[in-house]
Amino acid sequence: MTRIILASRSPRRVQLLRELGIRDFEIIPSQSEEEPDTALSPEAAVEHISMAKAREVLSRAGGEGLIIAADTLVYLDGRPLGKPSDEEDAKAMLRSLSGREHLVVTGLALILDGRELSAAESTLVRFRELSEEDISWYVSTGEPMDKAGAYGAQGLGAIFIKGITGDFFNVMGLPLCRLAESLEELGTPLTSLVSEG
Amino acid sequence: MTRIILASRSPRRVQLLRELGIRDFEIIPSQSEEEPDTALSPEAAVEHISMAKAREVLSRAGGEGLIIAADTLVYLDGRPLGKPSDEEDAKAMLRSLSGREHLVVTGLALILDGRELSAAESTLVRFRELSEEDISWYVSTGEPMDKAGAYGAQGLGAIFIKGITGDFFNVMGLPLCRLAESLEELGTPLTSLVSEG
Repeated sequence: MTRIILASRSPRRVQLLRELGIRDFEIIPSQSEEEPDTALSPEAAVEHISMAKAREVLSRAGGEGLIIAADTLVYLDGRPLGKPSDEEDAKAMLRSLSGREHLVVTGLALILDGRELSAAESTLVRFRELSEEDISWYVSTGEPMDKAGAYGAQGLGAIFIKGITGDFFNVMGLPLCRLAESLEELGTPLTSLVSEG
Repeated sequence: MTRIILASRSPRRVQLLRELGIRDFEIIPSQSEEEPDTALSPEAAVEHISMAKAREVLSRAGGEGLIIAADTLVYLDGRPLGKPSDEEDAKAMLRSLSGREHLVVTGLALILDGRELSAAESTLVRFRELSEEDISWYVSTGEPMDKAGAYGAQGLGAIFIKGITGDFFNVMGLPLCRLAESLEELGTPLTSLVSEG
């Protein structure tokens, strides 16, 4: 059985891997703190960050195995939205997303026995028009505070999303179809990583 | 507090309502067994079926409150795909979806104190090309057997979905944004149904 390391502490990524039937993996959160390079395209920026994370974890983990790293950014009008600094900032972000489309980009980096592979996946997300009451209520639930763009695509934030174009799991932080395709490219199909039972 | 009845036994719908913070609801699965009327559009067909479910449950539940019913169908080339009858049928369905787009349509019906409201939401789902190995493996997991179109958008089926256009939760069986908008139209915003704590 291949040793599998997820270079992320994101509960959503952990949950998504488990739902794919991958249960025997270690979690070694990356300590890499690269910021998005605004000179790069969103896709190139997240690919770069996710590979930096994978390499940083590889340098500490040692040994053979598969490292899975990912980095997700929210872009509005070409500029990255980080996590809100406080409730007023969260409200301002939600107002800026209301009734509009924005881009969620996830970089995926895999390292398997020295071979590196990275990819980026983009999803367009359309918000419905939010009222000030919607925004105040949502911020009061606390859900936006630790999330890039001030919303979560699962949980309560779901009711703001009119629709998407692209991979939904990408918005959650891990593009599952792309992960399966990339593993196949590395000669380790997902099915070979799934635990029995 | 409004009495809330979900007219469905679908674990995904139960889970989605809970994730919205709605915890105090009864589950009374509909006994209505209407088949999709192929003379109608997919949207009109599922709206009709979901309202029939809501009315059937209302007739047994009695009293006041909010009834939430939904019906989800998978359409390929304009024809509904049901649940597979056996493993060979599941394989044939998956082959027919491979590398193509299909439509997932959910009808949503609400009845609140005698007032009826129904809607339909459509989502395009794009499958990647599936190999015979992908299909055999997926069918051997058992996941396709109780699902319309022979796949689940969460769980292992996720790795087949290249992307969607529309509401992801609609594919899971309950269009959450539409539900929130419909509740608002009925004068009972979702926030008024959310349990404290």
